[in-house]
Amino acid sequence: MELTRKNEALIRTLHTRHGRKKSGLCICEGVRAVDELMLRRPELVRFSVATAEALAALQERRTVSGEVCIVPEAKLNELAGTVTPQGILTVAEVPAEPSVTEKPADPFILALDRLGDPGNFGTIVRSVCAVGLTELWYTKGSIDPYGDKAIRSALGAQFALKLRSFPDLAALRDCAVSLGYDRFCVTDPHDGENCFTAENLYERSVIVIGGEANGATMLPNCRHVMIPMPGDYESLNAAQAATIFLFDYVRLNFRA
Amino acid sequence: MELTRKNEALIRTLHTRHGRKKSGLCICEGVRAVDELMLRRPELVRFSVATAEALAALQERRTVSGEVCIVPEAKLNELAGTVTPQGILTVAEVPAEPSVTEKPADPFILALDRLGDPGNFGTIVRSVCAVGLTELWYTKGSIDPYGDKAIRSALGAQFALKLRSFPDLAALRDCAVSLGYDRFCVTDPHDGENCFTAENLYERSVIVIGGEANGATMLPNCRHVMIPMPGDYESLNAAQAATIFLFDYVRLNFRA
Repeated sequence: MELTRKNEALIRTLHTRHGRKKSGLCICEGVRAVDELMLRRPELVRFSVATAEALAALQERRTVSGEVCIVPEAKLNELAGTVTPQGILTVAEVPAEPSVTEKPADPFILALDRLGDPGNFGTIVRSVCAVGLTELWYTKGSIDPYGDKAIRSALGAQFALKLRSFPDLAALRDCAVSLGYDRFCVTDPHDGENCFTAENLYERSVIVIGGEANGATMLPNCRHVMIPMPGDYESLNAAQAATIFLFDYVRLNFRA
Repeated sequence: MELTRKNEALIRTLHTRHGRKKSGLCICEGVRAVDELMLRRPELVRFSVATAEALAALQERRTVSGEVCIVPEAKLNELAGTVTPQGILTVAEVPAEPSVTEKPADPFILALDRLGDPGNFGTIVRSVCAVGLTELWYTKGSIDPYGDKAIRSALGAQFALKLRSFPDLAALRDCAVSLGYDRFCVTDPHDGENCFTAENLYERSVIVIGGEANGATMLPNCRHVMIPMPGDYESLNAAQAATIFLFDYVRLNFRA
């Protein structure tokens, strides 16, 4: 397939949040992320642009979904969102969110409130997948989970999850309660129950991780949970905090 | 103090590993990282270059060590290693390593083998500080812990630690044994004891985290330890793995 001017123009618009919103499409870059997309959600793939070399690398891993335009490396670099492009980019539909009445399969829900850094987001998505959860919730004002940086950083792992977005943390809590998740726990860097001794932390609960700049919104009537930090140091980043909770859940529930 | 041509030239050389090695100096950028440097190791500071605004922000936090050249923002941007410079950079001596006979104060040692990513390194340094350890060991071929990216990513937290470098993991183990750390545990993504049930993991031990590309060197006669991952997902990054070990140590040793 040939790369048309129209598709070139489309790819350029997808590096912006506005362009993604307008078209309902996103860009997935790099062999590993595209591999993950084609494994988890092949039906979302529209088309790819790749160097012959990167396409061969992908074909070694997986049957390629959709048509592929082979282009010289210089052309691909021109279209890619990164200074070190990885040879392939795929245009895909942004996955639809689950309906508000669809019950999650997970024992608890990890929720991100006002998370701003795509690198932290990507790390969290990978941890959520690693522990075997199927959903990740977030409030708007957080990063765009299908932005190109977020997809690169997560290596496409968001395509393995169901993501749900909410206008704010109060709306997120309302939805959680309606689906039977009625313990609402907010991580607080300064005060609260010790996360390692708090009871029933991962049972029909929501665990909220706050963003880098302002932390989590403080709603009334929620449990405050703190990661103990014996060292003389200010705070952990959001991705570290999320990983600590997720793997403490693993420790409690998966005994070898 | 005025910014001389000689100091300008010096700053430029310090963005390279070669330049840092030749002079024994490094660059610390951004108010938060410089604040940490001046808190922990004020005696290492040579001089700073800052906008008037960033200097004022730093002075609100701390008595400034060393002389400061005030420059316009454009000049600072030209000297800085990042596309979004944060108003101040400080030239400092690279801290000397502890002598090979100096006994660490920590119950166990975290060691990094062939870690390549300065972002992961910075995250690990911050976690090590957060849990209250005082040392971090690494093998050469890993990143330069005093490179400008590593310092930005750690927000200067490496100045709060004693770092020790080794030509390879075998040399690191020899030193550990000579200092009384004789349990040698290597993290292995595929096989080994469950890290959450392994015994005496944090008692006079070394826990080795492998790099992104090749993992840790496999030495004979060491314990293999694995982080259980119930999800269907390839692997965690090195910083997540390190954080999981460090906070499991906290869970076991600091009961509120």
